[in-house]
Amino acid sequence: MSATVVVRLLELGQSVAAAESLTGGLVTARLVDPPGASAVVRGGVVAYATELKASVLGVDRELLSGQGAVDPQVACQMATGVRRMFDADWGVATTGVAGPEPQDGMPVGTVFVAVAGPSGVTVEGLRLSGGRSAIREAAVKAVLDLLARSLPTAPPTSPAGE
Amino acid sequence: MSATVVVRLLELGQSVAAAESLTGGLVTARLVDPPGASAVVRGGVVAYATELKASVLGVDRELLSGQGAVDPQVACQMATGVRRMFDADWGVATTGVAGPEPQDGMPVGTVFVAVAGPSGVTVEGLRLSGGRSAIREAAVKAVLDLLARSLPTAPPTSPAGE
Repeated sequence: MSATVVVRLLELGQSVAAAESLTGGLVTARLVDPPGASAVVRGGVVAYATELKASVLGVDRELLSGQGAVDPQVACQMATGVRRMFDADWGVATTGVAGPEPQDGMPVGTVFVAVAGPSGVTVEGLRLSGGRSAIREAAVKAVLDLLARSLPTAPPTSPAGE
Repeated sequence: MSATVVVRLLELGQSVAAAESLTGGLVTARLVDPPGASAVVRGGVVAYATELKASVLGVDRELLSGQGAVDPQVACQMATGVRRMFDADWGVATTGVAGPEPQDGMPVGTVFVAVAGPSGVTVEGLRLSGGRSAIREAAVKAVLDLLARSLPTAPPTSPAGE
C-alpha cells in the first residue's frame, strides 16, 4: 500500500506529511519504507500528548477541551496542520484509542483518519477491534487507503484537439 | 528495550520526545508500544527532508549546508530541538543514510544517534551494514540503548539518617 502511494506521488510530483496520535509514528515509517520515498515524504509529527496537538499542530484548543482528542474535527485539523507545517501537498492524520483504557469517553478501537489535500479534507471514522498493535496497524492501513483513494488517478493531461 | 525505558521513565516521572530522520517514525512508534507509554512519551518529529531539520527542529542552517544532514552536530541539535519543542525531559535523535544511495557524501550505513537530557547531550556514530530496514532497525536499537544508558539508574533518595 505505501509503495503504491509513494509511486503515485512520484508520478504526480507531489509530497506528503503525516500527523499521528495513536499510530505513534507508524504511518510515517510506512511511508518512508519504499526506496525513493525521500523525494515525496516531507516528514511527520507524532503529537501523542493532547496539548501538543494544539501547540505543535495548531489544533483548536477549545475543540480539544470540548470534544477531546478522539474526534473527527481534530483529525481534520491535524491533517491540515501538518500539511501546512511541512509545506506538503497532502497531509494525513490519525487519532484514536489504542487502549488498553478508554480515552476522553471514547471506547478502545474508536479511530478517526483524515486526509487533507489541495481540494479540502476528508475524514473517516472507524470502530476497530483487537489489541493495541492490531488497532494501530488497522489505523495505518485505513489512512494510507484513504490517501490512495484521494490521489488523482491520472496526471492532468492537456485537452485533446484544442 | 522500549518497555525498559518506558518503565524507567515512569519511575523517574520524566518524559521523552524523538526527532527522527532515517528511522522515519520507528523510534517514536517503539516508544509508544508499551501500555502506559502515554504518561511519558510526549511525541516526536520526523524531519525527513533536510530543510525541515532547520525549519521545524531549529537545526542551524549553516551547519546543514556545510556538513549535510548526516553529521554528529546535526544529531545533537535535533535532540536538543525536539526536547525543547515538546517540553520533554529527554530528547532523542537519529540521522543517517539508510540507502540505497549515499547521501551528502556519506556512505550507506553511516548513522548518528543523540540523546539530550537535563545535563547535556551525548552523540554516538555508527557504521551499520545491511539493507534499508536492517540499518533502520539497528539505528532504533542504538538510540534506545543510548537513552537507557543515559537515564539515572535509581531515583534520587533522601540521605539516610538526616
